[in-house]
Amino acid sequence: MYTISAAKAPNNYPIIVGTDLWSTLKDACSRQTLLVIDRNVYHYIVDSLLDNHFLLDQIYVLTVDENHKNLQVVIHILEELVTRRHDRSSCLVSIGGGVLNDLVGFAASIYQRGISWITMPTTLLAQVDAAIGGKTGCNFAGLKNQIGCFYQPKSVIIDLQVLAYLPDREYIAGLAEVVKYGVVKDTEFFAWLERNTQAILLRDKAVLQTMVQHCCTLKRSIVAEDVMDCGVRMILNFGHTFAHAIESATKFVHYLHGEAVSLGMLLASKIAVDVGMTTKNTFSRLLRLLDRFGLPVNIEVLLPFVDSICEILLTDKKVYDGKLVLVLPQSIGKVKVVDSLSPELIRDCIKNYVSL
Amino acid sequence: MYTISAAKAPNNYPIIVGTDLWSTLKDACSRQTLLVIDRNVYHYIVDSLLDNHFLLDQIYVLTVDENHKNLQVVIHILEELVTRRHDRSSCLVSIGGGVLNDLVGFAASIYQRGISWITMPTTLLAQVDAAIGGKTGCNFAGLKNQIGCFYQPKSVIIDLQVLAYLPDREYIAGLAEVVKYGVVKDTEFFAWLERNTQAILLRDKAVLQTMVQHCCTLKRSIVAEDVMDCGVRMILNFGHTFAHAIESATKFVHYLHGEAVSLGMLLASKIAVDVGMTTKNTFSRLLRLLDRFGLPVNIEVLLPFVDSICEILLTDKKVYDGKLVLVLPQSIGKVKVVDSLSPELIRDCIKNYVSL
Repeated sequence: MYTISAAKAPNNYPIIVGTDLWSTLKDACSRQTLLVIDRNVYHYIVDSLLDNHFLLDQIYVLTVDENHKNLQVVIHILEELVTRRHDRSSCLVSIGGGVLNDLVGFAASIYQRGISWITMPTTLLAQVDAAIGGKTGCNFAGLKNQIGCFYQPKSVIIDLQVLAYLPDREYIAGLAEVVKYGVVKDTEFFAWLERNTQAILLRDKAVLQTMVQHCCTLKRSIVAEDVMDCGVRMILNFGHTFAHAIESATKFVHYLHGEAVSLGMLLASKIAVDVGMTTKNTFSRLLRLLDRFGLPVNIEVLLPFVDSICEILLTDKKVYDGKLVLVLPQSIGKVKVVDSLSPELIRDCIKNYVSL
Repeated sequence: MYTISAAKAPNNYPIIVGTDLWSTLKDACSRQTLLVIDRNVYHYIVDSLLDNHFLLDQIYVLTVDENHKNLQVVIHILEELVTRRHDRSSCLVSIGGGVLNDLVGFAASIYQRGISWITMPTTLLAQVDAAIGGKTGCNFAGLKNQIGCFYQPKSVIIDLQVLAYLPDREYIAGLAEVVKYGVVKDTEFFAWLERNTQAILLRDKAVLQTMVQHCCTLKRSIVAEDVMDCGVRMILNFGHTFAHAIESATKFVHYLHGEAVSLGMLLASKIAVDVGMTTKNTFSRLLRLLDRFGLPVNIEVLLPFVDSICEILLTDKKVYDGKLVLVLPQSIGKVKVVDSLSPELIRDCIKNYVSL
């Protein structure tokens, strides 16, 4: 068990990474606690929870996915709190993936103007990304994460054992975010990933501990500099502007988020090569690592969607005054925020790459 | 025009008190601005707004009252923002009473995880109380202010001219909160109120400027010490625990909030006399001032509701471990938070007073 200790407020909560952390969870809870648990993990963990003195009636099981990441689910959670007469001293716990994390965190942030929230992310994606940084919320009026709060948990408790239950496809999708950290911020970590590909794919415990803990440390350090997401935090969008366009153009059914991020990072890197911002070597190292992890790299399958992707990109909320703000790699370990590329140039780069 | 300047973050926003502040409002707004206006004041101010270059399609008129202080109205405001494609740089303005302030502030706090919010309170109650302190929210599942956020406005702009349109009963109800500040924190201000009763009732402009500005300064200084309402801010509940019970027992139709606060302050003060915490003189000075302002002081009309009031009191959210936390006066200008009185004693005091 390793605790990533407190940064400055409002990020001064512990991130605990380890195994068998059920009693750690219990100790962090208050008298009135409601555990909201993703149905996907519920049956794997319910025995451990009840062994550790949580009561069955403290548990609320929820079926969630991106298509149900809406205000109605947040309202259900709030109603549970009211029914159980929870007061301001109570505590809400989320145990699940990124969607559940965001929904429960949002409910905690607005119940009686904010109660304690502890999050226990159970997917790799949530452990290395969604659960760190205090972004909570839900979709609204057809738009992703349109409402929500910046709200910090009381603690983030990451039990690596639950990763054993994660389907391969989901685990691998989470690795896209892991790779991202290497590209945007940490050359050595990227090299470590290259050296440990097999052990990572085998979910070796010691390797998972190092990997998750390192990603959390990186994300926290970036977030701490920019709590409200109006500056340096933007580098975390590497690959994501493209990923959102890909997900949207393919109606959110073809790709998991992490898979779209894999393709998005490739698009961003290819553009960086085309405009001379980085070398071909940066691009090919990234491509090779993603491929070895089993992430999608076959960009040509996007051909039927390329017009749609370009159109969505250029109406993205990251477009300011007609300029698309992109995060592009300069090298492995360093990215740059760029808003000087014309929409036509971006479109041409994408079309060329996809048509290769 | 007087600006109460910045306290420390997160309360470092200006509170501007004066007359004819429409251009001040306009200057504070951003490119994308939506003005949400209470229907009660809309027709009084619409000409001034349009004269100052706001456009008609930047205005959204809303009918609000305590019975419609619900999530559905917040959702309507959020939908307006989506429809108008407002982004994170946009600005939401509330022009109305306390209910509108709380609803619009809440919408601003959760739209795209928080956009700028400027509030222009138009009732005396909102000017001296609701608009200062960052409490936003709405009723939920039949409970008052059950969901919401602590969210600070970009600025509070208080135009005293709008008070001219306020019906007498509402204006007078607002004076209950004004009197409260004197009792909890400021002997001299209480004496100033006693000396200026007539001018205050006549809504003399200079007197209003002094009075409102002073209340805002007091409230801000208390709030700045306790942003999240878990300490000293509790003194602002003087009279309010009783007022909520009175409002609830009388089904929210007999009394305006300020009127219930008047009776609530009297109940609190009478208990303080009965338990020897303060002198009869404290009680009678308070009674006399409330009476001269035309606020309700005829406590005996509560007789039919007294059992109901006592029952609600003892299930209030300010009950911790079976103890009711009360704010009681020690003298004019000083209150104390007390949790040592038994429910039986409180009940007896109330019954005796009401039966007199």
